[in-house]
Amino acid sequence: MRLFALFAALLLSYSVAALPGNYLAATPGNADFALVDRHSQALIMVDEQDHKGVLRAVNSLQRDIQRVSDKQLSIRHSGRAKQLLIIGSLGKSALLDQLVSSGKLDVSAIAGKWDAFQIQLISQPLPGVEQALVIAGSDKRGTIYGIYDLAETIGVSPWHWWADVPPKKQPQLYIKAGTAFNDAPKVKYRGIFLNDEYPALTNWSNEKFGGYNSKFYLHVFELLQRLKANFLWPAMWNNAFADDDWQNAVLADEMGIVMSNSHHEPMLRADKEWNRYGEGPWEYSTNRANIYKFWQQGAQRHKKLESIFTLGMRGQEDEPMSEGDNIELLQQIVADQRQILRDTFTEQPIESVPQVWALYKEVQGFYERGMRVPDDVTLLWADDNFGNIRRLPAAEERHRSGGAGVYYHFDYVGAPRSYRWLNTVPLAKIWQQMALARQYQADRIWIVNVGDLKPMEFPIDFFLRMAWNPEAFNADNLQQFATDWASQQFGPAHAATIAQLLQGYTRHNGRRKPEAVEPGTYSIFHYSEAQRVSAELTQLVQTSDSVQQQLGPALQDAYIQLVAHPLKASRAVFELNRAVALNRLHGEQGRASTNHQAEQVKFWFAEDARLTEQYHSLGDGRWNHMMSQPHIGFTYWRNPPANLMPVVSLASPMPVADMGVAAEGSAQSWPISEYAGQQLVLDTFYPHGQLQRQIEVFNKGTMPFEFSAKASADWIQLSHSSGKITVEQNIAVSIDWSKAQTGLNQAEVHVQGTGWGGAKVQVSAFKPASTATTGFVEADGYIAVEAASATVGDNSSKAWWQKVDGLGRTGPAMVAMTQADYQLSDLSQAPYLEYPLYFHSSGNFTLHSIVAPTLQLIPGRQLRIAVALNNGPPHIVDTLPDHSEQAWQQAVLDGVRTIKTPLQVVQPGAHRLRIYLLDPAVVLQKLLIDTGGLQPSYLGPPASLLISPEPG
Amino acid sequence: MRLFALFAALLLSYSVAALPGNYLAATPGNADFALVDRHSQALIMVDEQDHKGVLRAVNSLQRDIQRVSDKQLSIRHSGRAKQLLIIGSLGKSALLDQLVSSGKLDVSAIAGKWDAFQIQLISQPLPGVEQALVIAGSDKRGTIYGIYDLAETIGVSPWHWWADVPPKKQPQLYIKAGTAFNDAPKVKYRGIFLNDEYPALTNWSNEKFGGYNSKFYLHVFELLQRLKANFLWPAMWNNAFADDDWQNAVLADEMGIVMSNSHHEPMLRADKEWNRYGEGPWEYSTNRANIYKFWQQGAQRHKKLESIFTLGMRGQEDEPMSEGDNIELLQQIVADQRQILRDTFTEQPIESVPQVWALYKEVQGFYERGMRVPDDVTLLWADDNFGNIRRLPAAEERHRSGGAGVYYHFDYVGAPRSYRWLNTVPLAKIWQQMALARQYQADRIWIVNVGDLKPMEFPIDFFLRMAWNPEAFNADNLQQFATDWASQQFGPAHAATIAQLLQGYTRHNGRRKPEAVEPGTYSIFHYSEAQRVSAELTQLVQTSDSVQQQLGPALQDAYIQLVAHPLKASRAVFELNRAVALNRLHGEQGRASTNHQAEQVKFWFAEDARLTEQYHSLGDGRWNHMMSQPHIGFTYWRNPPANLMPVVSLASPMPVADMGVAAEGSAQSWPISEYAGQQLVLDTFYPHGQLQRQIEVFNKGTMPFEFSAKASADWIQLSHSSGKITVEQNIAVSIDWSKAQTGLNQAEVHVQGTGWGGAKVQVSAFKPASTATTGFVEADGYIAVEAASATVGDNSSKAWWQKVDGLGRTGPAMVAMTQADYQLSDLSQAPYLEYPLYFHSSGNFTLHSIVAPTLQLIPGRQLRIAVALNNGPPHIVDTLPDHSEQAWQQAVLDGVRTIKTPLQVVQPGAHRLRIYLLDPAVVLQKLLIDTGGLQPSYLGPPASLLISPEPG
Repeated sequence: MRLFALFAALLLSYSVAALPGNYLAATPGNADFALVDRHSQALIMVDEQDHKGVLRAVNSLQRDIQRVSDKQLSIRHSGRAKQLLIIGSLGKSALLDQLVSSGKLDVSAIAGKWDAFQIQLISQPLPGVEQALVIAGSDKRGTIYGIYDLAETIGVSPWHWWADVPPKKQPQLYIKAGTAFNDAPKVKYRGIFLNDEYPALTNWSNEKFGGYNSKFYLHVFELLQRLKANFLWPAMWNNAFADDDWQNAVLADEMGIVMSNSHHEPMLRADKEWNRYGEGPWEYSTNRANIYKFWQQGAQRHKKLESIFTLGMRGQEDEPMSEGDNIELLQQIVADQRQILRDTFTEQPIESVPQVWALYKEVQGFYERGMRVPDDVTLLWADDNFGNIRRLPAAEERHRSGGAGVYYHFDYVGAPRSYRWLNTVPLAKIWQQMALARQYQADRIWIVNVGDLKPMEFPIDFFLRMAWNPEAFNADNLQQFATDWASQQFGPAHAATIAQLLQGYTRHNGRRKPEAVEPGTYSIFHYSEAQRVSAELTQLVQTSDSVQQQLGPALQDAYIQLVAHPLKASRAVFELNRAVALNRLHGEQGRASTNHQAEQVKFWFAEDARLTEQYHSLGDGRWNHMMSQPHIGFTYWRNPPANLMPVVSLASPMPVADMGVAAEGSAQSWPISEYAGQQLVLDTFYPHGQLQRQIEVFNKGTMPFEFSAKASADWIQLSHSSGKITVEQNIAVSIDWSKAQTGLNQAEVHVQGTGWGGAKVQVSAFKPASTATTGFVEADGYIAVEAASATVGDNSSKAWWQKVDGLGRTGPAMVAMTQADYQLSDLSQAPYLEYPLYFHSSGNFTLHSIVAPTLQLIPGRQLRIAVALNNGPPHIVDTLPDHSEQAWQQAVLDGVRTIKTPLQVVQPGAHRLRIYLLDPAVVLQKLLIDTGGLQPSYLGPPASLLISPEPG
Repeated sequence: MRLFALFAALLLSYSVAALPGNYLAATPGNADFALVDRHSQALIMVDEQDHKGVLRAVNSLQRDIQRVSDKQLSIRHSGRAKQLLIIGSLGKSALLDQLVSSGKLDVSAIAGKWDAFQIQLISQPLPGVEQALVIAGSDKRGTIYGIYDLAETIGVSPWHWWADVPPKKQPQLYIKAGTAFNDAPKVKYRGIFLNDEYPALTNWSNEKFGGYNSKFYLHVFELLQRLKANFLWPAMWNNAFADDDWQNAVLADEMGIVMSNSHHEPMLRADKEWNRYGEGPWEYSTNRANIYKFWQQGAQRHKKLESIFTLGMRGQEDEPMSEGDNIELLQQIVADQRQILRDTFTEQPIESVPQVWALYKEVQGFYERGMRVPDDVTLLWADDNFGNIRRLPAAEERHRSGGAGVYYHFDYVGAPRSYRWLNTVPLAKIWQQMALARQYQADRIWIVNVGDLKPMEFPIDFFLRMAWNPEAFNADNLQQFATDWASQQFGPAHAATIAQLLQGYTRHNGRRKPEAVEPGTYSIFHYSEAQRVSAELTQLVQTSDSVQQQLGPALQDAYIQLVAHPLKASRAVFELNRAVALNRLHGEQGRASTNHQAEQVKFWFAEDARLTEQYHSLGDGRWNHMMSQPHIGFTYWRNPPANLMPVVSLASPMPVADMGVAAEGSAQSWPISEYAGQQLVLDTFYPHGQLQRQIEVFNKGTMPFEFSAKASADWIQLSHSSGKITVEQNIAVSIDWSKAQTGLNQAEVHVQGTGWGGAKVQVSAFKPASTATTGFVEADGYIAVEAASATVGDNSSKAWWQKVDGLGRTGPAMVAMTQADYQLSDLSQAPYLEYPLYFHSSGNFTLHSIVAPTLQLIPGRQLRIAVALNNGPPHIVDTLPDHSEQAWQQAVLDGVRTIKTPLQVVQPGAHRLRIYLLDPAVVLQKLLIDTGGLQPSYLGPPASLLISPEPG
């Protein structure tokens, strides 16, 4: 950890160490180093024998300083000046070596370390030099990271090129006196995978660069450098990195980017190269000689470039091999690949050649059934393609010399539904998962599938910074990171607000990915769910618009890309689907308003297209094509070839007055079919429950009509009892509890307009005999509590419930955390969450435990909690009871699993519900107790009212 | 029975005696009577003292003869001519009485009879008179009926005014020598009820006559006279016959129309008169004095007019009385009403005053629970409002002096769904029900609710002719009647074809009334059902168009009213619903063709409006308003205020190529959700089953694409294996049984176009080990037989199965008929229907017995059949097992009841299924045996293939 930053973190709670330090002086002090001041500029000194990649980075720094200060510093390989910026890699810079040997500089903290750098001010290092700022790297990348650390610190965002973030103009740049720190990464290989890159990234790169050539990759590599990353799986859908342009590989090596190919492309050869050059089928059992030769060529080609060789084999196009579960064959393949490496790298032991075996999908099964590779091969575990890590190293697996890594996803093409369009992963989820990876020492490689790269800027940034230093992040500073990041891109004035917007739209997309949102997702019948989500998103958009207006013109493009577009586009898809749901409902009910809802569908479909077009026209088409991923009109996992507007219903209302009446909670409407036993019924009212329920009176024709509404009992209150309906109008029904009798009250509201008899809507209200004294009160047939509303007990350093903001669909989550390999020995010692409840009823109820779809990670482990009511015995609940493909698909679509278990409440009154921690990685979000009236909804009903006991 | 007609009926099988006789000579013979010839015309002789109604009818006859021959005969009260047409009522015509007393004429066959007439040629009846054609009536109406019998015989249809049927022009009119016959009605009171008359009839009568006044009723009365009817319940929705225009009542009496009021309007006072004049509530328990006075006025007002007094009381607007089941009160009411009649008709015994008690709806319940009225009051039983008579007189009830009658419906407003628009009742159904009424002596009154009168011309005609002489009709001559009727209206050339059209559209409407046809009614998934019905209707319309083109201009208006409009309008509603179903399906599947189907919906909605408009503009608006009954857009029993076009789905296909694939039998389409375990499957093929099943390949975008289809086994045959899809195309799948293995064959068809992987459609074919030898062969998981495909055994004169054409939804029905009150004593003697079946499988199957929704008619009776397989014991099946309101509503909507009973088939092979007759009035239409593969459809699958054993 960077010392300086650590210090700051200790002083400032919630501050994050992850963004570059504040060694830039806001105002110059006496002893500060003047990089640029009014009168002079420092001289950049770099050895011409230093790595070519370092020299390239120094040139980049020169441009960055000019971007910020409008001053161009000189770069020299020799000479002196009062203020020197000395940049060099240990062993590659004569000047640096001289400073070390002369005792002016102590580099023992970084020497021999992987990718380490040191930044230090030294006085009078040389004759005639007053001060030098030294950026020293333990190796090529270490120096480069030091260079970009300074670039970022003076005000150039890593995203200045990729997201049009303007440099923070400062005419003078001073480095604080006393600046001296060093840093090195915790995860050895940190990278991204450009994947699923057609149409967006491909069409864009074709238009801007003529393809996936080195002109394109230069920008990718530089982004990785600025984010202190070092690893890349290149685009491969119809591309072959090294074969398309050999300069790709040359430049990567020069810039310190370690190349590999994606998990299913062994031996540094792209899948598509086999299409171009392979002879015979891609079947090792029948075509070994040709494939062997193909791989030999790969090893030979990349022998001199820094690489990681992927071992193993899958079918082409990332499909399982046709032989299926043939472990013996796969072991032969790995042995052959190792032989090729031995034959290629004759001057070094095979164990020192970086190799990886990607345990992706069915390949993990091979491992679990006993297949092994030599210890020096890194095992790359994977998530379930939806951000839930499937497996981490068990204790006995952590001693392997090759270590382990994680392949993670921000983008995926496959079942149950592809997600390729917007950023849909909340930071807290990435943190929760990757912190586990770090804890279980899967930290040799962290690679994340980022799709088209844009618009994943925010989670890419977080993922790579966390890979650099996982310990810099904790549950309490994630929001601060977002604020700091927003501040880096847009300045401090609106940073906290922008952080809320980022969290807001990712929480929404985390509830359900836009591609999987359907007209029926959010209930239009219960708990005003769709309406509440709509209001939430509308509020976010209004806030965003207000922020955007206050930002200067230079920030507009970046703001649209990083904040406004993903927020507004997410909302458009949500509102489109809500409008489709209402359109269909109104269509089925024959409402004249059906067509208005159809117009809404068309509006949001057009709005989505408009937002895409706006994005594509930013900076005169700088990001043209980049948002062209189709995202509306899914019918299965694969996206449609273009956005398809959902089919809408259109009514042809006639010039008549024709009343219809619907009751909240049902699609049914009057006139009803008595023949089928239908009736209109409002859900039962309870004290402390939903205050109003709506009766909707609507017109099926175009001529207005008068209606009257009359309640048959005085305990029913109506918002109004008559009116004239042109299109539709709601009557809000509420209860005057002072007039209701104890127990069940039943009556009806009679709505008369056109037609025979009028509609009768059944209304019932249950007034309990007892008065709730304390706790979350049962009402409307349920008790709902957010997980984080618990009182936490018995947390220890070995096991604890951790509140994590931004991890729940509707509130913070409570995460079961433990020391690695912790095994609970005594349930009575288990940390617990306690919820006070008040039941008006008793019986055999159902507890819905809503948890994130995390997986059990370590073989033999479960994801258990224990549930106890009052002092009763805890019942163990397995929160991953169903391992079927179907259950998994449901869970990752919903973003949660819901586990239903019986909960017997023997008598009404106050009770305490406890949830005990048994296994780590359980992420508890919400608890629902269905006492008989829980209605279907996506997010569950809002939390029940909490009554606190009167003081005294 | 008319003697002459009886003779003809004996000579010509299937000829009907119901239409007026052929006593008109086609070419003049020597002894024929010349009514009109080239040189002279007969002189009409009528006594000026005869009934005013007779004189009016004579004037009408004069006009009719002129309409036909363009010659006006003179009407004289005295004088002589060579050819005399002598018309008179016995006792009201001096000339007639003179002929009788002189022995020239024998009227003993009609004298003293009710409504009888005699038509006879006599030679030299008087000095100077060569021949006289005598029309003699036993009373006023008898004479009138004789007059109109002649009018009809010479070529004036009873519908010449009401349906614009032109007279059959004949310059010369001769009555055959020897003409001599008499006739009298079998049912005493025969009439119609103008009901549910707003908007159509009311707006029309307002426009043409200024309301329901005597100018309007004149035409109604004359129609009744021409159809030899004598009874009317007048329009009463917002009308009061006698109070609106007293001349209504005066004219009715003059023209021999016996008036009453509808079943719930007692004592000859209209419901609406109470609104105008009544004091206090319509509650006898609290307002007896006022209501008593109100009724007294009614009796007094109608004392001198021929009437039937309705006794009893219901609530206003034809609702049950608010007191509910108050038998005591109702008995008091009847006693008071009888007292009023005694006080009014002081000069005759109360028993001779015609009185009726309508046992409608809940009132029947009063009777069944023991309430009785004096024996001289006619008991008017009713149908269930859907043409199924609820009750007929039991043996002990047939001795009542007042007798019994039936109130029947061609039109109804109420649950489960009103039917008010077109004629929906097949003749065969009317015949089957009313023949029972006659058999059980409910023949004092036959009255039928005819709605707006038009367009019920055809069934009104049939009902009233059958009322005149029920014995003239039998199961075998109904189609001939339709042909004769068509011939009467349109001439003989196309009569048989037109009869088929009449039967065709009424069969269609009899399957389900247009108001109750919904998008899902006819299956668009199974047995090509909706498509077959569409083809059937299209064929009818094409035939009709062809007939219409060949008819002369004078017949066009009548043809449109009586044939073309109801046929085309029925089709439009069917096709509208079919298009809605396809539109919704295609919408759900996202097909580009969704919009085409939406256009189809709009087309048929517009076509319906166009047909209405065409009807309304006939004869310069002669029938304006008459077809204005709303009939599209029902959501419950009541019609919408105007035709509401169903909500349609509209897609917005994008300019892409996007394949979808559906398999016949399911709404599902590829791409499918593997996640939900979906797959595309065609129903299993069987030898002798459906020959082809379709795979539908369609486009969701607007750019064409190429597809290929490949079967994974050689026993699957595809109609084509590739093609280019712009909108959609079917691939017909069939089986090469020579290549299939015995047992279950399973393979798939792989359709590839756009998108990943392509669609796989599961295909299976079951090839039985055995070869079917004889019988209806099991295939596709069922055996289906039309009831009439039976071999009939053990028919006797006491009980017999009668085949009735036009009574089934898909074929002739088999009707259980017995002598009245017949009780089966020995099942082994029961007539049976036998069906040879061949099963390829065995097991516990389900027999679906599909019967008409007839009711059991006589208390204590059931509607049973017995089912036996081979020589096994017969199992008794109650075909009316569920007496709930819901079951009844389902049955009358569907036009059938389906009774499911187990049928155990112990081993495959040939079997004989027998259905034994146990109770009369069972109408068996179809039998389905579900052996595991029966799919949902409205009409059931088409009949299974019948294999006849090889001769020898």
